[in-house]
Amino acid sequence: MLDFTYYAPTKVHFGKGKHKDVGKIIKEYGYKRIMLQYGKGSIKKSGLYEEVIKALAENDIEVVEMGGVEPNPKISFVREAVKLARERNVEMILAVGGGSVIDSCKYTAAGAVNDCDVWEFPTRKTIPSKSLPVGCILTIAAAGSEMSCSAVITNTELNMKRGFNNEVNRCKFAICNPELTYTVSEYHTACGIVDIMAHTMERYFTVCEPTDLTDRIAESILKSVVGAGRVLMENPCDYDARATVMWASSLSHNDLTGCGRENVLAVHQLEHALSGEYDYIAHGAGLAVLFPAWARYVCKYNISRFAQFARRVWDVSDTDDAAAAYGGIEKMAQFFADIKMPLRLRDFDIPSDCSARLADLCTFGKQREIKSFISLDYDRVREIFESCW
Amino acid sequence: MLDFTYYAPTKVHFGKGKHKDVGKIIKEYGYKRIMLQYGKGSIKKSGLYEEVIKALAENDIEVVEMGGVEPNPKISFVREAVKLARERNVEMILAVGGGSVIDSCKYTAAGAVNDCDVWEFPTRKTIPSKSLPVGCILTIAAAGSEMSCSAVITNTELNMKRGFNNEVNRCKFAICNPELTYTVSEYHTACGIVDIMAHTMERYFTVCEPTDLTDRIAESILKSVVGAGRVLMENPCDYDARATVMWASSLSHNDLTGCGRENVLAVHQLEHALSGEYDYIAHGAGLAVLFPAWARYVCKYNISRFAQFARRVWDVSDTDDAAAAYGGIEKMAQFFADIKMPLRLRDFDIPSDCSARLADLCTFGKQREIKSFISLDYDRVREIFESCW
Repeated sequence: MLDFTYYAPTKVHFGKGKHKDVGKIIKEYGYKRIMLQYGKGSIKKSGLYEEVIKALAENDIEVVEMGGVEPNPKISFVREAVKLARERNVEMILAVGGGSVIDSCKYTAAGAVNDCDVWEFPTRKTIPSKSLPVGCILTIAAAGSEMSCSAVITNTELNMKRGFNNEVNRCKFAICNPELTYTVSEYHTACGIVDIMAHTMERYFTVCEPTDLTDRIAESILKSVVGAGRVLMENPCDYDARATVMWASSLSHNDLTGCGRENVLAVHQLEHALSGEYDYIAHGAGLAVLFPAWARYVCKYNISRFAQFARRVWDVSDTDDAAAAYGGIEKMAQFFADIKMPLRLRDFDIPSDCSARLADLCTFGKQREIKSFISLDYDRVREIFESCW
Repeated sequence: MLDFTYYAPTKVHFGKGKHKDVGKIIKEYGYKRIMLQYGKGSIKKSGLYEEVIKALAENDIEVVEMGGVEPNPKISFVREAVKLARERNVEMILAVGGGSVIDSCKYTAAGAVNDCDVWEFPTRKTIPSKSLPVGCILTIAAAGSEMSCSAVITNTELNMKRGFNNEVNRCKFAICNPELTYTVSEYHTACGIVDIMAHTMERYFTVCEPTDLTDRIAESILKSVVGAGRVLMENPCDYDARATVMWASSLSHNDLTGCGRENVLAVHQLEHALSGEYDYIAHGAGLAVLFPAWARYVCKYNISRFAQFARRVWDVSDTDDAAAAYGGIEKMAQFFADIKMPLRLRDFDIPSDCSARLADLCTFGKQREIKSFISLDYDRVREIFESCW
């Protein structure tokens, strides 16, 4: 087991109706003027917006609004939000939404109290040591941003999607009411499930062993999410299945599944090139295509690990390790198909010769290699993209 | 899944040599005068004491010492420590030791800044809303106090051992170096393993279902600890096994294993009567005797849960639920025997007619019942104690 630091200080308020406590929760921290960010308006249609505004008003909390966060949040939006947060001296940022809204809030929070442009965070020109507090009301189980130290942003001018990992990014609190996800479409529910599984599997498929306890926790999350995912395809309003997926979302990316292991997120780096270039591709859908392709490509470099994954998560019974290992990957791909995820790059509306361009983006123009069981340089990354056309 | 709040803000620094960072870590928080508590001197024999003092001195941290915390820490000691902490205006309390030392520090920290006697915390006469920060260097994997909100104290005047659960009890940081546990005796290693398993199983054996993800995480911890426990009986200096047990200690009692479930700790309440009355009985050893006895007594009230436990944790293959359920309990008892734990109350140096007295203590003189799959009143508690004579 490698040395690690585990720090997951987010206070999670989990359960039915919990979003109605948001005013009380914020008041207890003593914040009186907050910025509220949300997406394109689905929270207005569902009535959640009004409930949140009411809860805040009842606790005398002044609200500065910045609605309209886009999926794959844009740096231009964040820059505006930072300007407004500074002008209005807000004390905290409240995200009502999913990973995109939370990530937008994390950038806004860091930008508001650090004297630099927010693009300096993902490019590591500035490493912030402070940020405004961020809280969230989660409306989709997927990104795990509610407990993670990550925040992803898209720079449309440079056509780049980049992450920024820092302890200041941890939400102070997360309000997780599984009922709020009943209305998430089948497609986006499935995308979320893939994202959660990917966060867990990325940490699982690294080279440092043995980490028996961390392995088993990761396998627990995967098995539970697969089970709940199948239930949700039949009944999107199954509370326990929604709750399982929502709690798994937080645990998959709060570092619990990586304790004692390397943190690489190789497939995420492939996918960020894809959805950075083709903005309309949902992150989870991109991962559903790329994860099996990556796994098939690297499997031979660590057969025993893929065999353990196959046996413990997918109940593959092959006694031969290689057969089990490859069998597990196909079971994973089949599950993604079962929850109606795309399986090939051609399922997206993108050109058939995209691999070179994507490999170039992913390796920053052949400037970096992606760490994995083997180091993935431009040529290998391109092969992986090609293999899933 | 029941609603829950999950809040585990302790920053865990896990790995080889990490205790040497203690001065740097405390300095980063800005504390300049701390109280150091430790046990009966084993940290002086091992050389750990000197390393800690050196690390603190190098970071200009003034130390007020209170060595001599006893196993099952005593309220008289804590009262002295509180007095000293107030006189010397210490800013935080550092525990170097196991659960007893950490718990003593938690009481001291709360006592130092609340104007009441510390016995008011476990008796709930005072519910503290503040406390001094506590940090720890863990030297034995067992109680989970390094991440829990619990603190247990013994009042020798009243012959009572009582717990006090409060969010102010969460350690600010925990330094967990598995190497520091190499010298823990086989007996105390085994006691720790039982305690860790008990913390997990107490939450597992409650009535609220389904909680698939929490169940699987609990089962993961149990399976890992059983495996590591067997390794440690052969090789007490196996790093990965020590690391597994140490990390399981934290996860078993930081509430992760109880998310969405009731928090009852029934067997702990039986055991607190036992080691409260017979101070020389190690908590884990008492649990090793009482857990199987309790399980055999209540099993018939929730066969399916015990059957799941048997199949997933102990690989029991019986298709009949009842047979599997009871089989699992015997496998657990056998494991406790394999790690050389006592199996019967008569293995302790206590009178054979102790059951009535213990049942009386446990039920506060027939004033309370212990919640479980069935409510355990005085007579039932007495039967359980008698069953394991």
